[in-house]
Amino acid sequence: MVLYTDFGLRDGAVSEMKGVAYGLAPDLLISDLSHENQSDIFEGAYRLFQTAPFWAKGTVFVTVIDPGVGTARLSIVLKTKAGHYFVGPDNGLYTLIAELEGIEGVRKIDERTNRRPGSEQSYTFHGRDVFAYTGARLAAGLISFEQVGPEIPAASLVTFKYQKAERKGVVITGMIPVLDVQYGNVWTNVSQKLFDELKIKKGERVRVRTFHDGKQVDDLIAPYVNTFGDVPVGQPMIYINSLMNVSWALNQGDYAAARKIASGEGWSVEITRAPK
Amino acid sequence: MVLYTDFGLRDGAVSEMKGVAYGLAPDLLISDLSHENQSDIFEGAYRLFQTAPFWAKGTVFVTVIDPGVGTARLSIVLKTKAGHYFVGPDNGLYTLIAELEGIEGVRKIDERTNRRPGSEQSYTFHGRDVFAYTGARLAAGLISFEQVGPEIPAASLVTFKYQKAERKGVVITGMIPVLDVQYGNVWTNVSQKLFDELKIKKGERVRVRTFHDGKQVDDLIAPYVNTFGDVPVGQPMIYINSLMNVSWALNQGDYAAARKIASGEGWSVEITRAPK
Amino acid sequence: MVLYTDFGLRDGAVSEMKGVAYGLAPDLLISDLSHENQSDIFEGAYRLFQTAPFWAKGTVFVTVIDPGVGTARLSIVLKTKAGHYFVGPDNGLYTLIAELEGIEGVRKIDERTNRRPGSEQSYTFHGRDVFAYTGARLAAGLISFEQVGPEIPAASLVTFKYQKAERKGVVITGMIPVLDVQYGNVWTNVSQKLFDELKIKKGERVRVRTFHDGKQVDDLIAPYVNTFGDVPVGQPMIYINSLMNVSWALNQGDYAAARKIASGEGWSVEITRAPK
Repeated sequence: MVLYTDFGLRDGAVSEMKGVAYGLAPDLLISDLSHENQSDIFEGAYRLFQTAPFWAKGTVFVTVIDPGVGTARLSIVLKTKAGHYFVGPDNGLYTLIAELEGIEGVRKIDERTNRRPGSEQSYTFHGRDVFAYTGARLAAGLISFEQVGPEIPAASLVTFKYQKAERKGVVITGMIPVLDVQYGNVWTNVSQKLFDELKIKKGERVRVRTFHDGKQVDDLIAPYVNTFGDVPVGQPMIYINSLMNVSWALNQGDYAAARKIASGEGWSVEITRAPK
Repeated sequence: MVLYTDFGLRDGAVSEMKGVAYGLAPDLLISDLSHENQSDIFEGAYRLFQTAPFWAKGTVFVTVIDPGVGTARLSIVLKTKAGHYFVGPDNGLYTLIAELEGIEGVRKIDERTNRRPGSEQSYTFHGRDVFAYTGARLAAGLISFEQVGPEIPAASLVTFKYQKAERKGVVITGMIPVLDVQYGNVWTNVSQKLFDELKIKKGERVRVRTFHDGKQVDDLIAPYVNTFGDVPVGQPMIYINSLMNVSWALNQGDYAAARKIASGEGWSVEITRAPK
Repeated sequence: MVLYTDFGLRDGAVSEMKGVAYGLAPDLLISDLSHENQSDIFEGAYRLFQTAPFWAKGTVFVTVIDPGVGTARLSIVLKTKAGHYFVGPDNGLYTLIAELEGIEGVRKIDERTNRRPGSEQSYTFHGRDVFAYTGARLAAGLISFEQVGPEIPAASLVTFKYQKAERKGVVITGMIPVLDVQYGNVWTNVSQKLFDELKIKKGERVRVRTFHDGKQVDDLIAPYVNTFGDVPVGQPMIYINSLMNVSWALNQGDYAAARKIASGEGWSVEITRAPK
């Protein structure tokens, strides 16, 4: 079971969830994805998209990025065609992983059977009382996917809209879903496969323009290389990141800080071959 | 074994403790409660009170919130009537969990037998040399509770004083033991059960006044509801939190930051039905 | 398997590594040393020196403090005479642990066999594709040390130079490798054994002068005691830390912040008996 929340680690919330889970299944493997999300559904969606493919089939992700806890949003379990389970709120958090892995089924959690006994009067900590409880039982095989609750149509899964990557002639447009936050590298949703359609070779120069809410905020020309060490320290480079998407960075520098670039909705990019 | 310290995670101290523990018992389950406590015994006591009840009987908590390391304070193991063990300094950290779960027994750690071999000349890292060593051996069944060391009277356990929740007529007084730090929600030690004696119904308005060292710093009137989504975004509400205590919050806002409210000793509250 | 990186925990990088490792060996023990290193090789080297001796023989440390990822630096596995394995970049990170534990052998990772299948086109995340992959297989016994790749001479291991502790007459010189960051205590690389050659008894006063790039920045005279509680709150003391090296601190204060002392290359110390 992999945990991903916006709870932070200073207080006891995550440990309450783990106590509940181990209490149900003492031999369960529990691993933390992160607890530092800032209630940001877009970033949350991307981190699931980024990490889930590296986990074994059958892994259960309990994901509590849930700014709407206590509202009418559904509590669900998504099963993807890759065999991963996602337990959490139906608030858009599964937009990207559902696209990537495909939807095998979605079930609404029936809280009459899938809720920590004794928690019926508690309305504010679904992470512990519903999601960790249900996720641990699912991961340990104490309930099947079918026993989660009634099936709901895949098409009803809440998703957000965002700018998909596409090529029109010699121009590719896309967006910046997240930064590689620790280093300030800029990641896009433009795949190497799409980028290759521009037929730019390693060593050739690329132009990338960045827009925030439609207004240009950066205009970069840099060589397309394999990795950081292919340019001098402090110099920019275009490369394919670890998820095989077009990215740019300063070798041993922080591009995003230097150019004041952020990520998420409203951050779009335009990629072309650099003029000669 | 659950670890709770004020060591932070940047340096190697927690990993030294885990290395010692796994060295004694390679199959031990070790789970982190938090390592971000700021040497605050009151908050530490509350986090144990908050989390321990969700862990299985027999769980050993190794707790190193220990501003007095290297002073005459005792090293102890507390066993509660709920069957939880707490290994750490006798400095007040167990005040609230001892009250909640009751004391089954307290033993002074006999450091002649319960200390990492070779650490006799090390005076400053009891977390590694005494507490993790003893906690791991206790959790793995290598020693019994009786083998920890001599029993000491339950009444001699060091505890701190704090303002208990009580009702006098139509007024309930209590305190703010901690904040729900990640979101800025204000938690009190006033239980739902005590609050129910005011016979306030869901939807009715409540007045809560907050005092710091006796001086009023906030005066709130807000509806008593089930959960955040029951009021508009940005509006205040009174609710029962995940530990079933009276709390208040701004829906999707940070009440504590907005009203400059903190927690711990000196932070008291007065709760009444709101005037019509 | 113990993980130590400079990735932070906000993004998904560490979880990608763990997913890869558990996918190869579902029963593997994975424990985090820290992910908060700031790409500081000197501090990284010290944290390995500090923690590894407390872990069992055979433990595999996967260490990704790697500012030069994507340059010509080698990917290696070091086996020490104490039986610990270190998987990571050959960039100096193993300087101190190699000195402490001795080198049993060094092998260059042969990426034709020891690389996550399908990652051949990914150049920027060796932590996931090479180090976690190889470390997990080594820790789980799926490959032997010999199968990592060709042996390289111990003498070719990249190491950094630093000021070793030494005594000349009544003066000991050394350096400040790290701070005890959470509390601001100043740690040196002067061992208790070397310090004892000054024949200073507990309770006697010691003079320690601190230099940054050769310029004196602090001059302290304080008693040599066992532990913090041996001096009044707020007062300085000289003591032997948990790694049995000479250190100083303010009892319940932050010495490094008060005197603006940092650590690493360029921070040297001079220790003598205090004048009468």
